[in-house]
Amino acid sequence: MAFRFEILKKDLFSKARLGRISTDHGSFSTPAFLPVGTQGTVKSLTPEELVEVGVEAILGNTYHLYLRPGHDTIGRLGGLHTFIHWERPILTDSGGYQIFSLAKLRKISEDGVTFQSHIDGSLHFLTPEKVVEIQRTLGSDIAMVLDECIPYPSPYEYAKASTSLTIRWAKKSLEQRQETDPALFAIVQGGMYQDLREESAQALVKMDFQGYAIGGVSVGEPKSLMRSVLEWTTPSLPENVPRYLMGVGTPEDILDAVMLGIDLFDCVLPTRNGRNGMLFTSIGKMSIKQAQYSEDERPVDETCACYTCRHYSRAYLRHLYLANEILSSRLNTIHNLYYYMNFIKSIQEAIREGRLLNFYKTHCSRPNGLETEGSAHRLNTWG
Amino acid sequence: MAFRFEILKKDLFSKARLGRISTDHGSFSTPAFLPVGTQGTVKSLTPEELVEVGVEAILGNTYHLYLRPGHDTIGRLGGLHTFIHWERPILTDSGGYQIFSLAKLRKISEDGVTFQSHIDGSLHFLTPEKVVEIQRTLGSDIAMVLDECIPYPSPYEYAKASTSLTIRWAKKSLEQRQETDPALFAIVQGGMYQDLREESAQALVKMDFQGYAIGGVSVGEPKSLMRSVLEWTTPSLPENVPRYLMGVGTPEDILDAVMLGIDLFDCVLPTRNGRNGMLFTSIGKMSIKQAQYSEDERPVDETCACYTCRHYSRAYLRHLYLANEILSSRLNTIHNLYYYMNFIKSIQEAIREGRLLNFYKTHCSRPNGLETEGSAHRLNTWG
Repeated sequence: MAFRFEILKKDLFSKARLGRISTDHGSFSTPAFLPVGTQGTVKSLTPEELVEVGVEAILGNTYHLYLRPGHDTIGRLGGLHTFIHWERPILTDSGGYQIFSLAKLRKISEDGVTFQSHIDGSLHFLTPEKVVEIQRTLGSDIAMVLDECIPYPSPYEYAKASTSLTIRWAKKSLEQRQETDPALFAIVQGGMYQDLREESAQALVKMDFQGYAIGGVSVGEPKSLMRSVLEWTTPSLPENVPRYLMGVGTPEDILDAVMLGIDLFDCVLPTRNGRNGMLFTSIGKMSIKQAQYSEDERPVDETCACYTCRHYSRAYLRHLYLANEILSSRLNTIHNLYYYMNFIKSIQEAIREGRLLNFYKTHCSRPNGLETEGSAHRLNTWG
Repeated sequence: MAFRFEILKKDLFSKARLGRISTDHGSFSTPAFLPVGTQGTVKSLTPEELVEVGVEAILGNTYHLYLRPGHDTIGRLGGLHTFIHWERPILTDSGGYQIFSLAKLRKISEDGVTFQSHIDGSLHFLTPEKVVEIQRTLGSDIAMVLDECIPYPSPYEYAKASTSLTIRWAKKSLEQRQETDPALFAIVQGGMYQDLREESAQALVKMDFQGYAIGGVSVGEPKSLMRSVLEWTTPSLPENVPRYLMGVGTPEDILDAVMLGIDLFDCVLPTRNGRNGMLFTSIGKMSIKQAQYSEDERPVDETCACYTCRHYSRAYLRHLYLANEILSSRLNTIHNLYYYMNFIKSIQEAIREGRLLNFYKTHCSRPNGLETEGSAHRLNTWG
């Protein structure tokens, strides 16, 4: 696997960096947002449509693909890229988060985790080693180590034991890795405890992974605490590898995290919100089902150039949503992903041109600007 | 409304004709198959995708659009074409079939029909005149008169009274028609009774409509009876206007009816079957959920050039279907509509080249050739 991360520019007024990740399936710019393709499809869209809205890389959920259709099946069919007709980079998660949020009757041991499938109740046992093997078989470009994602809040002693286990699992994962495998990223855990976060980061950094993720955030904690976790963790991470904040988030969360040095993001928010009729616009969020749009001829966002905004009125989108039409999910998802990809491109441009702080200030003053209140909730990463 | 029907070629060995219908929104070739866009969308597809699979005209359901979002709303938003971003011809039905298949508590009188919405139970009264007005407001290219679609079987006396009423309603509809209105087609009823079918056709033909439809078939009667209805009816219809068989059907039904002189068809079969994982192929029907396809790398149909067959395996389509993914409906619908449009184009070509009888023979001998058994069931025209 030819994996490479280059930093093209560092921001002077924050820890933000502009970079580029290269893989066997091409390269993409960072900061990057990866839409979630849970079951081998970013819900409702074709690969061509993803490219059209500006997507450069996607995430696949190992947990879901392992259970259905099975990684071996995908492997025999030529790997995940061929199977789903997506030629660009794919990052697969480890399933850790899903095992702890979706699966039933999970039981953790030193060696791994036993759980029941949420689909058919069948029993499974996954180890750190097996999870590396699964992602190898899928043929992903960036693989994640198996971790335990603990709930919020968790008692200190539990968080401490779990953090140690995740570190030991990371070591096993690395030992299992082969030369031709996907790039392997470790996941920093540690709950909401500064010392555990620091210990976790420092222990993992010593092992020399090709990237570092911050896990266990966006699990219901206050937004301010998510920011604290980033502040405790990122200083311990090496400069020259990508940093990935898993399962985050709103545009505001992303901008915040970019300024703290994060390079990669994934989240179901734009896709799931789209299916639920919640649209991101340059003047705030829009719930398309509202009666006020019933005869509104305007596009969702008059400043937007996406397919949806070029051809359809708010009135039509409202009608499709209320009539429970499949096209509603499609058109809304296209718009929301376009919004996200455009937002991330604006961040990249701002870093490149040395005006990120100014971009931040402008964004804060917008009607849907930074939300400093509320909780950070990772929606189940069920795309 | 500039409505015109030209016959370009008549088949020597059957009553089939190759023709062209011109409207204010362009023209299309006949025999034609119109996919059903019930609620202002051919389920799961964009207009661009319809064009890509070869669709030249679509059907909209007046009953559904009247109830939601309302014809007046669509009218104020510039008409149905603008509302749904479809620039080519639209035929709207009268709602007659839906009132008698979907609505609750329907009560018929000389003046019209009272019914309860299947959506919210609200009470509505539609008259033949109102139905013409609704379709005028929608801005459709071809409108249908309000008819009563009687169930199969129906007693003779009931069928006779209903057939007379539909004739009186047709007259009222025609009187309501204005110069700039859509072309108006009458609907021949008469149940499964030869004399009533003949009376209905002859009475309506005297009124000089711009086209004639055959309704009240594909309601559960044996296939042989549907054919009889066509044989009783078509001889009474004028040569120089289009003939439309409503709600039909399988490729075999269509070919059969073309040879009896039918020019227009609509049916939910390719779209609904697609969403249900039933695919039309050159070697027969395929139920994509079957285990035999779980690792099948081949496209659905190796002779097919549709987007789905160019890029996806049976194994992936099976996976999407079992995982209940939206993309499953999309890819299957694209394939099935492509199959239908290709089939209808083959029929057009065969007429043009004077080899329709040969085409018929070849088609009969194929594995999914003519089904002469079974019942003709119009699926609720709920696209």
